[in-house]
Amino acid sequence: MTHNRTGSELTFTVEPIDADAAEAVRRRLDDKTKPVGSLGRIEEIAIRLAAIARSTELETRPRAVVIFAADHGVVARGVSAYPAEVTAQMVRNFAAGGAAVNVLARQMDARTVIVDMGVACAPEWPAAVLCHRLGAGTADMAAGPAMTIGQAREAVEQGVAIAHELSSGGVRVLLTGDMGIGNTTAAAALTAIFTGRSPEDVTGRGTGVDDRALVRKIEVVRLALDRNRPRLEEPLDALAKVGGFEIAALTGFILGAAAERRPVVLDGFIAGAAALVAAAICPSAKGYMIAGHRSAEPGHAAVLEHLGLDPLLDLGMRLGEGTGALMALPILDAARAILVGMSSFESAGVSRRERR
Amino acid sequence: MTHNRTGSELTFTVEPIDADAAEAVRRRLDDKTKPVGSLGRIEEIAIRLAAIARSTELETRPRAVVIFAADHGVVARGVSAYPAEVTAQMVRNFAAGGAAVNVLARQMDARTVIVDMGVACAPEWPAAVLCHRLGAGTADMAAGPAMTIGQAREAVEQGVAIAHELSSGGVRVLLTGDMGIGNTTAAAALTAIFTGRSPEDVTGRGTGVDDRALVRKIEVVRLALDRNRPRLEEPLDALAKVGGFEIAALTGFILGAAAERRPVVLDGFIAGAAALVAAAICPSAKGYMIAGHRSAEPGHAAVLEHLGLDPLLDLGMRLGEGTGALMALPILDAARAILVGMSSFESAGVSRRERR
Repeated sequence: MTHNRTGSELTFTVEPIDADAAEAVRRRLDDKTKPVGSLGRIEEIAIRLAAIARSTELETRPRAVVIFAADHGVVARGVSAYPAEVTAQMVRNFAAGGAAVNVLARQMDARTVIVDMGVACAPEWPAAVLCHRLGAGTADMAAGPAMTIGQAREAVEQGVAIAHELSSGGVRVLLTGDMGIGNTTAAAALTAIFTGRSPEDVTGRGTGVDDRALVRKIEVVRLALDRNRPRLEEPLDALAKVGGFEIAALTGFILGAAAERRPVVLDGFIAGAAALVAAAICPSAKGYMIAGHRSAEPGHAAVLEHLGLDPLLDLGMRLGEGTGALMALPILDAARAILVGMSSFESAGVSRRERR
Repeated sequence: MTHNRTGSELTFTVEPIDADAAEAVRRRLDDKTKPVGSLGRIEEIAIRLAAIARSTELETRPRAVVIFAADHGVVARGVSAYPAEVTAQMVRNFAAGGAAVNVLARQMDARTVIVDMGVACAPEWPAAVLCHRLGAGTADMAAGPAMTIGQAREAVEQGVAIAHELSSGGVRVLLTGDMGIGNTTAAAALTAIFTGRSPEDVTGRGTGVDDRALVRKIEVVRLALDRNRPRLEEPLDALAKVGGFEIAALTGFILGAAAERRPVVLDGFIAGAAALVAAAICPSAKGYMIAGHRSAEPGHAAVLEHLGLDPLLDLGMRLGEGTGALMALPILDAARAILVGMSSFESAGVSRRERR
């Protein structure tokens, strides 16, 4: 992994995924007692995990979901159905183990890592919360840049470092999580920049705003783009102008996972916006991304299309936190289990298809 | 549970699922620390499991996948890419634990039950295979009825009995599995009858026949319908004429699960054809059916539409055996876990949405 801090942009190098390991796993799957390809996307994921690991030995454990939390100055403009203090309250809920992400992480045998990247009203956190605060929330992106280039770079680097640390500690699959009241507004702005879609197309109801607030939210996204003039050619700059601390950290986390040759299972719209930035910084990182699910948030479809990702699940979820990424883990586990546990035609004494 | 053996048809009574338990669970979910409905279909499944169990105490363990296996006389007409002896070979593979269904059942912590309903070349089975054989495969449905009404009724009753026995033994979730070279041809014929679609619309490549064999397979389905003149008003008769021993047993298994107030997770096209017959015999059984996945086999879409079922997964799977049903189990587990494990707004001290 190399990255370059000079200049206003960030360069980052990731090795492409490995076609040879992919092909070796495809051949092994074709020897298993089933019609070729009949396990559909489970086989596709097995092949991809091999390409990522550059090995036919697939491992999906241990795994960790990292929940990056931060607040957004833009919330003052009434873009969310929930008050900003909910970010901090939910971080406390994560630390206590009572949120949806905790419940699903327990079910899926994933470790939960909680990171305060810049929650506004941060109390004394329980020990479970890692503190990498870059401020008490971002500035209002509709009035000017949400953060400085320095803050954005710092957040990205912290995300990279966390992916690196977890991978070095043996974690095999990384999952994105997020919490931040207002962050679908930032994600919509980033999605508009990187996909070229209009604010109307990519701005949704988030936690559930009504029609009037949705109109306001779209206007806020438009205003943020007009004021800041972010350009997709300068992804770090765009991230600083209309992103969020947690989104910048997620960008780094995704890049770091790719650099460490770990699959990174993306949750929904917020992770998707971070993935757009990550792919703009380093296109070969895309090979390491697995879209866990299709969020009900409309901008997510634009993200997935732009990145060429076909999500594993479509369960109408729109909660965030990492819940949609966690739900996809059994499919990764199945991919590994099939490769390891199934008999071949030969070993089971099963006839192959007739040649006609 | 009551069913009536007089006359040529079968009547079967199942209590409708319970709206009160559903509503009680919906209210509990709305108190959890998440935007209302934001867990999408996970919440829908929690509500459905409550309606099925007539209780807000959801249980998804223990669970069992039952693989009903049988052969089909119609295979002599070249409708499958695999020779008929593969049915017996795969039953042996199931008993040895080396098939895809075994691997996924272990992953999902489900018990595997293997039932020989009429495998053609049945050797001495290992002890793990339950023997309820009704013959050495069905007769060729393109030449006349695949089985007698008596055989069909017997197979249905054995399916009911197995669902009853497992439920009495404490199993909370039943999953359908199947094995039978040629059974997509029978499933296509049944689907044509019960959905009113043409053989072209509902006949697919099964284990992977080529274009020429697909044309032949469609002709065989048409011939079977012309020769036998099955009528949807007489579902047991239709099942006897163009079904299979394993499909008839699955029909009973689905009805038995419903009568025992157990959710029955349907695998793909074969289970779907059995579900069409079950719903024709007893429409209120539909409330107990959960479609695990959308099979890549084209007739399955017609089945799902006719039954009004929206499958949980769409992974391009077309293996059968119960694999697609098993893959849906983590969603049922998540539904239970969310209801049991998540904090409420009150208990976690999280603010509710702002009233605007």
